[in-house]
Amino acid sequence: MTVTVATDEYGKGGVRIVKVVSDGIGDQVMDLTVEVRLRGRFADAYTGGDNSMVLPTDTMRNTVYAMAPEHLGPDIETYAVTLARHFLASPAPVDEAEVSIVQRPWARVGDRPHAFRQVDTGRRTTTVVAGQDGVAVSAGALGLRVLRTTGSAFEGFLVDGLTTLEPARDRLLSTEISAQWRYTTNPADLGATWHDVVQRLVEVFCDHDSKSVQHTLYAMGEAVLAQHPEIDHIWMSLPNKHHVPFDVARFGIAGGESVYYPFEVPHGVIEATIAR
Amino acid sequence: MTVTVATDEYGKGGVRIVKVVSDGIGDQVMDLTVEVRLRGRFADAYTGGDNSMVLPTDTMRNTVYAMAPEHLGPDIETYAVTLARHFLASPAPVDEAEVSIVQRPWARVGDRPHAFRQVDTGRRTTTVVAGQDGVAVSAGALGLRVLRTTGSAFEGFLVDGLTTLEPARDRLLSTEISAQWRYTTNPADLGATWHDVVQRLVEVFCDHDSKSVQHTLYAMGEAVLAQHPEIDHIWMSLPNKHHVPFDVARFGIAGGESVYYPFEVPHGVIEATIAR
Amino acid sequence: MTVTVATDEYGKGGVRIVKVVSDGIGDQVMDLTVEVRLRGRFADAYTGGDNSMVLPTDTMRNTVYAMAPEHLGPDIETYAVTLARHFLASPAPVDEAEVSIVQRPWARVGDRPHAFRQVDTGRRTTTVVAGQDGVAVSAGALGLRVLRTTGSAFEGFLVDGLTTLEPARDRLLSTEISAQWRYTTNPADLGATWHDVVQRLVEVFCDHDSKSVQHTLYAMGEAVLAQHPEIDHIWMSLPNKHHVPFDVARFGIAGGESVYYPFEVPHGVIEATIAR
Amino acid sequence: MTVTVATDEYGKGGVRIVKVVSDGIGDQVMDLTVEVRLRGRFADAYTGGDNSMVLPTDTMRNTVYAMAPEHLGPDIETYAVTLARHFLASPAPVDEAEVSIVQRPWARVGDRPHAFRQVDTGRRTTTVVAGQDGVAVSAGALGLRVLRTTGSAFEGFLVDGLTTLEPARDRLLSTEISAQWRYTTNPADLGATWHDVVQRLVEVFCDHDSKSVQHTLYAMGEAVLAQHPEIDHIWMSLPNKHHVPFDVARFGIAGGESVYYPFEVPHGVIEATIAR
Repeated sequence: MTVTVATDEYGKGGVRIVKVVSDGIGDQVMDLTVEVRLRGRFADAYTGGDNSMVLPTDTMRNTVYAMAPEHLGPDIETYAVTLARHFLASPAPVDEAEVSIVQRPWARVGDRPHAFRQVDTGRRTTTVVAGQDGVAVSAGALGLRVLRTTGSAFEGFLVDGLTTLEPARDRLLSTEISAQWRYTTNPADLGATWHDVVQRLVEVFCDHDSKSVQHTLYAMGEAVLAQHPEIDHIWMSLPNKHHVPFDVARFGIAGGESVYYPFEVPHGVIEATIAR
Repeated sequence: MTVTVATDEYGKGGVRIVKVVSDGIGDQVMDLTVEVRLRGRFADAYTGGDNSMVLPTDTMRNTVYAMAPEHLGPDIETYAVTLARHFLASPAPVDEAEVSIVQRPWARVGDRPHAFRQVDTGRRTTTVVAGQDGVAVSAGALGLRVLRTTGSAFEGFLVDGLTTLEPARDRLLSTEISAQWRYTTNPADLGATWHDVVQRLVEVFCDHDSKSVQHTLYAMGEAVLAQHPEIDHIWMSLPNKHHVPFDVARFGIAGGESVYYPFEVPHGVIEATIAR
Repeated sequence: MTVTVATDEYGKGGVRIVKVVSDGIGDQVMDLTVEVRLRGRFADAYTGGDNSMVLPTDTMRNTVYAMAPEHLGPDIETYAVTLARHFLASPAPVDEAEVSIVQRPWARVGDRPHAFRQVDTGRRTTTVVAGQDGVAVSAGALGLRVLRTTGSAFEGFLVDGLTTLEPARDRLLSTEISAQWRYTTNPADLGATWHDVVQRLVEVFCDHDSKSVQHTLYAMGEAVLAQHPEIDHIWMSLPNKHHVPFDVARFGIAGGESVYYPFEVPHGVIEATIAR
Repeated sequence: MTVTVATDEYGKGGVRIVKVVSDGIGDQVMDLTVEVRLRGRFADAYTGGDNSMVLPTDTMRNTVYAMAPEHLGPDIETYAVTLARHFLASPAPVDEAEVSIVQRPWARVGDRPHAFRQVDTGRRTTTVVAGQDGVAVSAGALGLRVLRTTGSAFEGFLVDGLTTLEPARDRLLSTEISAQWRYTTNPADLGATWHDVVQRLVEVFCDHDSKSVQHTLYAMGEAVLAQHPEIDHIWMSLPNKHHVPFDVARFGIAGGESVYYPFEVPHGVIEATIAR
């Protein structure tokens, strides 16, 4: 029997790095978790235990730190591109180097130049893939939790014999936005672009006359693509975090329509890619 | 052999509730996790399985929701007091009713009255204990993550044969503040007081000329007690989240002093109560 | 500007269900978390908010419970197939229905027919995709944590200017095996097959003369495919959970070679598909 | 204004250590997370930043590793006692040294001497406090998940205007046992005693004719104290992990009484100490 290595990737995950970047005003804290994945012609390592072309994952970790002094600035995309290109150029038989980064947000406390507070309104992410055909740069966001108390409906849906959901003309809607979008050309100001995309996602979520999560997801994607010609598609995940009114009327208590039981699980799954 | 119930408490944990509270400007989202614990003369339930004086924990959950329309406003302390008094007054033989609440923070998106975004800079908490001698109200905060890049030292410490730590004249210092303080008299504006205490904790952490985490913890407690006569003591936990410079000089690379490896574990434990 | 829905899927995640299945000897506890994802011609829901062909995700949840009395037996694969076929046959325009299940393991306590204890040595999983071309059944495992203290090397690897790792002739090796394999024809006894595949993965991990994680991953896949003609490929993830000897010799203490500091992060990433 | 340090403790948490202990048959893997807390006369460190009597927490970490070659054997209690005594004897002004350990369980794979698999049926714990009056040794268990499908009732409880729970004559009962018990004299075989206590807790949970969780908790404590004169009290936490039958009869489907929706939250809280 012959078996083969059909797909493979290896690398280093969970590399935590903090860099204090100084600008004219004061410090900025870059707090990152980096993951490196290499894909290529590594079959000999699997089939015969030949490590001669295997760059240790420990070296990848060292590289993340070693390139930080010169190359890690305020934009994680730029740093990821540098790392991905470095690994693609390695003597190892790499066909594709992927570098993903998640950034934890810190904000200055008042106008203090050297003191920071974590303000978690969601995390900035990037995934860069460097290969023979060039470098693909995606940016993204994780954990943007949003909620609106009105202006969201879900009616006229398909009913089968197991459907018990009542149509809702005006429901509380809450989700945790994850998104990833790809740049066909890198914007001049990666940070400003990221903030603008996130603002657009949040604002359309808040303002859209929503007939369903799907309906609003589409509007969010449309708004981003309309404003940003340098983005060719955007993927979003908008899990429906259900809030069910808790029936207190049975106890003779009024005002219960504003009191909700938020389900941890289960949650709706709604994921789509909106593209030009 | 005779064995006895030396201590006991029972109740309901993890009660999730969201209430949309409307004020003159728009809505406010109260997103809470409530825990109820009763202590009292319940030994018969243990020794003989006599449930006649056992209020089901399911009823406690119902109560959390049922009292929300009238009693849950912008201050979790007030709601916790109402709940704790209610359980103390139950026909069940309750000597002490404890209600703890953790609030997840939501902020309005721009000036929209009905749309919200989670802004996690730490969570507001309360623990209220109602008993025969009255009601003790504590407020608190969880998960205030702060970091300063300068102005913190740790030198002149005790050295034994297993000590390898080098003295630090100026180190990066980071922690996740947890705090709980007790009101001897309830402040007129519970929300404003909470925000002021948190601001004081954060600012003293940022500005203190720190000789150690202990040293700064004391200064934080001192500042809170100085400003707030209605608080008689404050407990704080300031785990030392170590950030160790990653040595890139061995690769001939300069600038490594700004590049850190943040340890997830282990962490220093520093906890103390500062009191008048 | 025209934008389109390039990819989409929707469904329900985190559906928790427990069924007590009785067999000749006693009960068996099936403790599952189910996720349903539908892919199809749902563009109108996105672009125009037309819900007429949208089966509510709440109905999917109901369906998971409603089909359990008749269809949920000891094998999660069979139940997933039934669910996936049900959703494919829905009036909704479903092209592909995917059902994934993770099972938490319970074992009888002694020979008691009705009492159980959770014994977490890893979880059984399945992913079933039903489409126009039939039904693809995969089985899998999550969280098989294994460790060997000898018989594992990593030497002769590629060295670049940032490599500091020392070659290891005999190192402690630990990982948390995740695996997923596809059945071309369903085995007569799905449960026995699952246990055999898991045993083979664990035993080859333990016994293989390992030159690297990649080398051992290949041997594990080879062993599974050699024994199971009904499996055409297997994907594995073997994160390298590093254990670094803690240097106590600097304190004049002997015996330190058996004392390790286990890194939580970072970890090596090694993932591959072994196929015929 | 004068403020004082009313309570304080400091130390090191999350110290991860693995030791391979060899016995006559093969290896044994001790996989521990250690926490050290010192209490004493450390006020000067707080009020004036005087570190001269502060043993760095980094040194505590080193100590955990440095004492492992000689002192860490198969019983975590013994190791914790050694560590606690060491810290009490430090030149630092320690009044009380507390060492807590949680052990992750590994089992040999078949009869292999050097290969292991994690079998998580709950974790062994210990807390040792060394002070002027001697050393108090507690042992414990975390995460013993158990479930019984019959033989558990909850009836005749107190009903108030917010009670909606129906009495249950025969319900599914599930919990995650946490326990901690104190030895007045250390048993000759700490490991065997631990296993016996855990077995007793699990078996009484399974076999008791239960009128409530409280009722069963008492029986569990009684059984442990009856068998083990060297234990003077045992604390237990038995959160009630609710499983609610999912109503499928409304769909005309039979057999629904064996299908449950397991709540993640909320859960009942039941905690008590049973003492002689």
